[in-house]
Amino acid sequence: MRIAVDAMGGDFAPQAIVQGAVDAARAFDVEILLVGQRAAVERELGKHATRGSAMRIEIVDAPEVIAFNEQPAIAVKTRKGLSMRVMCDLVLAGNADACLTMGHTGAALVAGTLMFGRIEGIARPAVGVWLFGLQPNTFLIDMGTNVDCKPEYLLHFALIGSVFMERVRGIANPRVALLANGAEDNKGNALVQAAFPLLKKSGLNFIGNVEGYDIPTGKANVIVTDAYAGNIVLKYTESLSEHLMNLVDDGLAAQFAGDALEKAKSVTRALRLRADYAETGAVPLLGVNHLIFIGHGRANAKATKSAIGEAIRAVDAKLVEAIREGLKTIDKSAS
Amino acid sequence: MRIAVDAMGGDFAPQAIVQGAVDAARAFDVEILLVGQRAAVERELGKHATRGSAMRIEIVDAPEVIAFNEQPAIAVKTRKGLSMRVMCDLVLAGNADACLTMGHTGAALVAGTLMFGRIEGIARPAVGVWLFGLQPNTFLIDMGTNVDCKPEYLLHFALIGSVFMERVRGIANPRVALLANGAEDNKGNALVQAAFPLLKKSGLNFIGNVEGYDIPTGKANVIVTDAYAGNIVLKYTESLSEHLMNLVDDGLAAQFAGDALEKAKSVTRALRLRADYAETGAVPLLGVNHLIFIGHGRANAKATKSAIGEAIRAVDAKLVEAIREGLKTIDKSAS
Repeated sequence: MRIAVDAMGGDFAPQAIVQGAVDAARAFDVEILLVGQRAAVERELGKHATRGSAMRIEIVDAPEVIAFNEQPAIAVKTRKGLSMRVMCDLVLAGNADACLTMGHTGAALVAGTLMFGRIEGIARPAVGVWLFGLQPNTFLIDMGTNVDCKPEYLLHFALIGSVFMERVRGIANPRVALLANGAEDNKGNALVQAAFPLLKKSGLNFIGNVEGYDIPTGKANVIVTDAYAGNIVLKYTESLSEHLMNLVDDGLAAQFAGDALEKAKSVTRALRLRADYAETGAVPLLGVNHLIFIGHGRANAKATKSAIGEAIRAVDAKLVEAIREGLKTIDKSAS
Repeated sequence: MRIAVDAMGGDFAPQAIVQGAVDAARAFDVEILLVGQRAAVERELGKHATRGSAMRIEIVDAPEVIAFNEQPAIAVKTRKGLSMRVMCDLVLAGNADACLTMGHTGAALVAGTLMFGRIEGIARPAVGVWLFGLQPNTFLIDMGTNVDCKPEYLLHFALIGSVFMERVRGIANPRVALLANGAEDNKGNALVQAAFPLLKKSGLNFIGNVEGYDIPTGKANVIVTDAYAGNIVLKYTESLSEHLMNLVDDGLAAQFAGDALEKAKSVTRALRLRADYAETGAVPLLGVNHLIFIGHGRANAKATKSAIGEAIRAVDAKLVEAIREGLKTIDKSAS
């Protein structure tokens, strides 16, 4: 199996990405194609003891980089020599089974959608997320660009989220829910109310509506919403967590000093780490014809390695094929 | 000044409500009308030393109660003898300057809208909320029933939220923002994008879009959104806070024992209390022709007293009149 990795994308690229790729190549049965400006990647790779080992890492040159004053999403549309484009081309040519970038999220969504194309029958590709390690068994979708949705979009988000959680995350028969302003069946805005009957007859394990209260409780494995509410929940999670941890730290500092304070603060430190989305690897853009994983710009080597592991699981699970199969099932249920 | 208080509404009614009313009558220059079933309210009031004091509390009989199997919002529409209806009638007859209930929120929204009517020119009444004491200078609106909004609704939420924060909460020239999936001007769903220019030319202190990250930071004093996203944020705040405090407690229990653990847990206990919305009193339904304050069902005596204090400030500030004036200003700015 081969995974193409964008060596130039992310705040700590190429250093952290190359380190993570080397760690992954050591740990997993995989070949890594590091995509980026050859000289820069070679320099980083040279710092690691790769020679003579069984490790399989190759560099694929991508000569262009996005300029400081360029809009990343537009650059990706127009410039073929960018690492994000080259890694997608490797997948399209059959030279890699999946690709991964920690670069600009908007640009990655454009690259994946543009180059891989939508799966036939999927209205809109989407990207989901965990709550930063606080609730790994719940996946919120969409966190991408679909801020204005039609009911069928939500049905498809439900399907692709469910297939992903089952095939890649190993959760049997994932519980799927719509996010609403109350858990009763008649809650929700017009969009949610119109999507409800579609989910109901989809054949998915639809448990109805969940409300804001239910997001971190694990009640649902897949929580479906548009990217307007999704993005708000995502960013608010980070902010409120940080805000509360700061308040806890202030309180602890008023109660303890010296070693005891250090011990107390180790608790919030561990939680911050758990809540940090640099730790959670990457998520796939779901609903396109090939596998592209998108990670957080702050990804460190550990996140890069985790993300490569996740990509391997998705290839093994034949994720794209499973979504195509799932689509046939929901179409049959609906008719 | 006279405030009518629904003595029967809330999980701890009439006990906590009567206690809070007595405390308020002692602390503030106000006359309280306790509205409810006379015998039950008299019994509670008898527990307090009210005779011979300068305290002014009267009971107003409201013979009917909502039955267990009744829909509160429907009951309020049809039954005139309910305490929520009687307290509104006192305001309409000029016998009270404002009213307050800790009863069923949906029923209170119906009672206020139905009995007081919309202010001419306001598209939809709305109700806002603080983040449970975590960020008292930020008011999120709408948290009510407007899950599907038109751009003008958001304009009006911005106006009434701004007037409320300025007149009642004492914040000069409140910073108003739209909640969006990113802070840039071009972010937002179709609704937010259409509301943006209306806010821009409203004459309000509009600072543009804020994102989920900005909710607890105090960046804006009034954050405007529809009640779909608003309700999700509201309930998620409670849930995520609780979830994180539990994780902190677990961590502290692994680090400390005995007195040190008690000391450590006093930190999360204080934060839970601060985050508990029983503590924050009540908020007004904004955009109707008279003052109705709505509190949380879990309101204790302290919350009831705070809520009465807030109602007094709103009467003193001539809040309804100020909204009517504000409406003229935004109409002038828009033309």
